[in-house]
Amino acid sequence: MSLIRPEKAQSEYEIFMKEWKIETSVDANDFVDNFQAFFFDCDGVLWRGNEVIQGAVEVINKLIKANKQIFFITNNSTKSRVTLFEKFHKLGFGLIKKENIICTSYAIAKYFMEKEEYKSGKKKIYVIGEKGICEELDCCNLLWLGSYNDNEKKVVIKDDLEITVDKNIGAVVVAIDFNINYYKIQYAHLCINELDAEFIISNKDATANFTSKQKWAGTGSIVASIEAVSLKKPTLLGKPNFFMIENVLKDLNIDPAKIVMVGDRLDTDISFAKNCNIKSVLVSSGVTDANIYLNHNHLNIHPDYFMKSIADFL
Amino acid sequence: MSLIRPEKAQSEYEIFMKEWKIETSVDANDFVDNFQAFFFDCDGVLWRGNEVIQGAVEVINKLIKANKQIFFITNNSTKSRVTLFEKFHKLGFGLIKKENIICTSYAIAKYFMEKEEYKSGKKKIYVIGEKGICEELDCCNLLWLGSYNDNEKKVVIKDDLEITVDKNIGAVVVAIDFNINYYKIQYAHLCINELDAEFIISNKDATANFTSKQKWAGTGSIVASIEAVSLKKPTLLGKPNFFMIENVLKDLNIDPAKIVMVGDRLDTDISFAKNCNIKSVLVSSGVTDANIYLNHNHLNIHPDYFMKSIADFL
Repeated sequence: MSLIRPEKAQSEYEIFMKEWKIETSVDANDFVDNFQAFFFDCDGVLWRGNEVIQGAVEVINKLIKANKQIFFITNNSTKSRVTLFEKFHKLGFGLIKKENIICTSYAIAKYFMEKEEYKSGKKKIYVIGEKGICEELDCCNLLWLGSYNDNEKKVVIKDDLEITVDKNIGAVVVAIDFNINYYKIQYAHLCINELDAEFIISNKDATANFTSKQKWAGTGSIVASIEAVSLKKPTLLGKPNFFMIENVLKDLNIDPAKIVMVGDRLDTDISFAKNCNIKSVLVSSGVTDANIYLNHNHLNIHPDYFMKSIADFL
Repeated sequence: MSLIRPEKAQSEYEIFMKEWKIETSVDANDFVDNFQAFFFDCDGVLWRGNEVIQGAVEVINKLIKANKQIFFITNNSTKSRVTLFEKFHKLGFGLIKKENIICTSYAIAKYFMEKEEYKSGKKKIYVIGEKGICEELDCCNLLWLGSYNDNEKKVVIKDDLEITVDKNIGAVVVAIDFNINYYKIQYAHLCINELDAEFIISNKDATANFTSKQKWAGTGSIVASIEAVSLKKPTLLGKPNFFMIENVLKDLNIDPAKIVMVGDRLDTDISFAKNCNIKSVLVSSGVTDANIYLNHNHLNIHPDYFMKSIADFL
């Protein structure tokens, strides 16, 4: 068992591995021994939609049994930590604990719990996003509006039409929302531009593997809409920002050189690893194909290692 | 009657007029005499929603009676040329002709009529936008999908979910769509990224005066979403591009120094004037306020003249 070598990789990736001088010919056992903590992205690394990537369960079980520290760091905001934990178990990842999961829905609630005006209920949050975020906010008794409550709101332009916003909204959270509509976009715009509400986003992934059948428009497509109308730069809580993992890194207290991040995206996962100053493995089992590499080549984000999939750990 | 002078202007604009060295103290009669053709933006210049800006009808009538060439050049794609013409008449602009109106819905149909594969019905167009575009495409017997036909389409993520696209789609048109939804975003993404469809946009205005009550999220908020997911740069047909007016300029055959554009936006109207090499008047009756000027100051787009509103022509 060994990390995939250039000559074994899909041909379209070879050029990048050579160009980027990615470490190859590393024995997988040596590789595992070399690290104390493993951070994994989920979508495109462990699964695509509800389809487990071959070998993923075995790899995670092997690492847990070897007493490695494991964290699943995902820009998934559609599910709460509890619901994601249930998904892990349903898909066969029976050894993992809820505390191993760091998702953006959880990070969003954590962000607001650090602010007295939200904790006290003085300020509310307008949510463009799925149920997972609402569940996490509810868990912390944080007050929110929007999300699924605004799914059916229609805007029919008429002379006297005016959308009024709750004056106590202090922040707008934007994430993937399968029921995005013009009402939500306008509401968020009014909160940010008229109420001067904070503009917080889960992540900016352009595409995602919501099902294994095709690439889906990702959170980035929703965030871009609010960025364009508000002309404001949002605060990013998900990868590549390291906000989500800041406390974990402190608690772990491990030499960063002994931590490795495994992900399928250069602009989130690999960039996140660079921001945390830890090592990184790019896998080609997710959304990233050679064209995406080309698109991001100017960003100069290169992984330390490359694998076809997580199965190469075995 | 005179163009507004700095000392009379709203104080927040004075700084810009001074900084930009905008021509002031011009007599309005001399000003009108000086030009042979007048291009007007509509929203924020002639009206806000269905509320006519004071003096607008009188100014247009005065110019028409003085045998000036008049064109209304609008990034409005929600209405067809015919429907816009009806609006003009309903609001009291009784002297104008349909041919005076150049709107992006019309420009979109014109764009595709120049391409044999669309004219012949071999290729279809996927529309994110309002009825105005569909009406213009129908007028030219161009084949389209999407728009109001997809308003009620829901995406409920399930394991085997896959959206299939019509393989004959050759272009995606994106404009303001009050019924934007995730299905439309995903459909457009698949057309552009899987079918390599052309990506055509009406305009990129961040906000618009759809009603007089508040600023509304503009086409830019819808376009940004498709740009973010497709990672492609669109072809812009509306202002500030001069595509819409190219033939008009040729037919008019007037010295550009004798043409003036009156608009409320720096990034569309005034920038459009620069691209056409004609003179420009900025009016403060629309979406643009002093903050927007500040945001665009780095773009170095300055009008030649400034007025509080079109009424300053009188």
